[in-house]
Amino acid sequence: MSMRITAEPVERLIEEFSRLPGIGPKTASRLTFWLLRGGDEQARSLADAIRELKEKTTLCSQCFNITDTDPCAICSNPNRDHSVICVVEEPLNVLAIERAHEYRGLYHVLHGRISPLDGLTPEKLKLQELRARVGAGGIGEVIIATNPTTEGFATAHYISRILSQFPVKVTRLAHGLPMGGDLDYADEVTISRALQGRQEITEPRSDQNGRR
Amino acid sequence: MSMRITAEPVERLIEEFSRLPGIGPKTASRLTFWLLRGGDEQARSLADAIRELKEKTTLCSQCFNITDTDPCAICSNPNRDHSVICVVEEPLNVLAIERAHEYRGLYHVLHGRISPLDGLTPEKLKLQELRARVGAGGIGEVIIATNPTTEGFATAHYISRILSQFPVKVTRLAHGLPMGGDLDYADEVTISRALQGRQEITEPRSDQNGRR
Repeated sequence: MSMRITAEPVERLIEEFSRLPGIGPKTASRLTFWLLRGGDEQARSLADAIRELKEKTTLCSQCFNITDTDPCAICSNPNRDHSVICVVEEPLNVLAIERAHEYRGLYHVLHGRISPLDGLTPEKLKLQELRARVGAGGIGEVIIATNPTTEGFATAHYISRILSQFPVKVTRLAHGLPMGGDLDYADEVTISRALQGRQEITEPRSDQNGRR
Repeated sequence: MSMRITAEPVERLIEEFSRLPGIGPKTASRLTFWLLRGGDEQARSLADAIRELKEKTTLCSQCFNITDTDPCAICSNPNRDHSVICVVEEPLNVLAIERAHEYRGLYHVLHGRISPLDGLTPEKLKLQELRARVGAGGIGEVIIATNPTTEGFATAHYISRILSQFPVKVTRLAHGLPMGGDLDYADEVTISRALQGRQEITEPRSDQNGRR
């Protein structure tokens, strides 16, 4: 039993901050003592924002992005191009693409990538829902923007295969994204170029039985 | 008026996280979406810890460290040496010194350093309280552990001057701490060495009128 060297609520918050990704114990201490020095309002405001994050958000029933209205602000925006769907792995990827101010279509958030070793089989992703959306018609193009990783590429291929039965153009973001990286770290220019240079996936259509 | 690109509670938390020191907008986004992916319990637990940080802590009436009991765990510990006081600028500095497992005395937290340009005059710090503690007797040594910065040195000199009327040894941490740095970034070994090599400040005693 080690001797406590600071107040329990201080130790507890340092521990909680340390659980966040990329936050070590020293950074967690600095954040905690920074909040201690600040006003009551500052800490309360942060605590409220964290609590309301889960309480006041849900998934959009159309694109499965995080939203506080259903359908979300993007799906319900008449100024967006409703004939194009951009498929991403995570909600944070939507933010990264929106920041590039290049894309005006809709999204579809898979909530993961196909990764059997991590227990992420196709049924765990929002793939049936994507198929249903495209199957309902009115979609001219599906842009696949999964991460430029092995699993992201495998997911992209899987999607192009399950969509091959529909009369829809399936493209993916141009290379230019650094290999093995994560979409969220790409700068706006790289994401813009990747959108502009997107290429059609030359996947066999369903009349070839969906096989190669 | 820019178009909202994500749910309001998400934007709000990203904004709140971005206010924390050293957290940029991209890190703030990653932390927010990491919490979104996690369970409800995780976010609630972090929010509670932040709220209770201010609600359940106070300042120790003896050493002015952050505490959830008064006097604090250090001041009320009979196994610590109650004849030695280590003076630090901020509560976080206590943690840094405790981590070195070298020091067994008490503390006195100034809550700042003398910095007139920032409006931090001596009256704004817990200096009167330090004088009163030493004046009450029973103290053999005061170790000054202000940060190794110009303002920290000026504060150390000021303290040695106001304590010169008392029969107490006034020392400061040995050099070895990197100049211009911050105590919180120093590693345990450096802090241990600085404690071991502490030197007496050869300040004129009050019989020389407190001047040089």
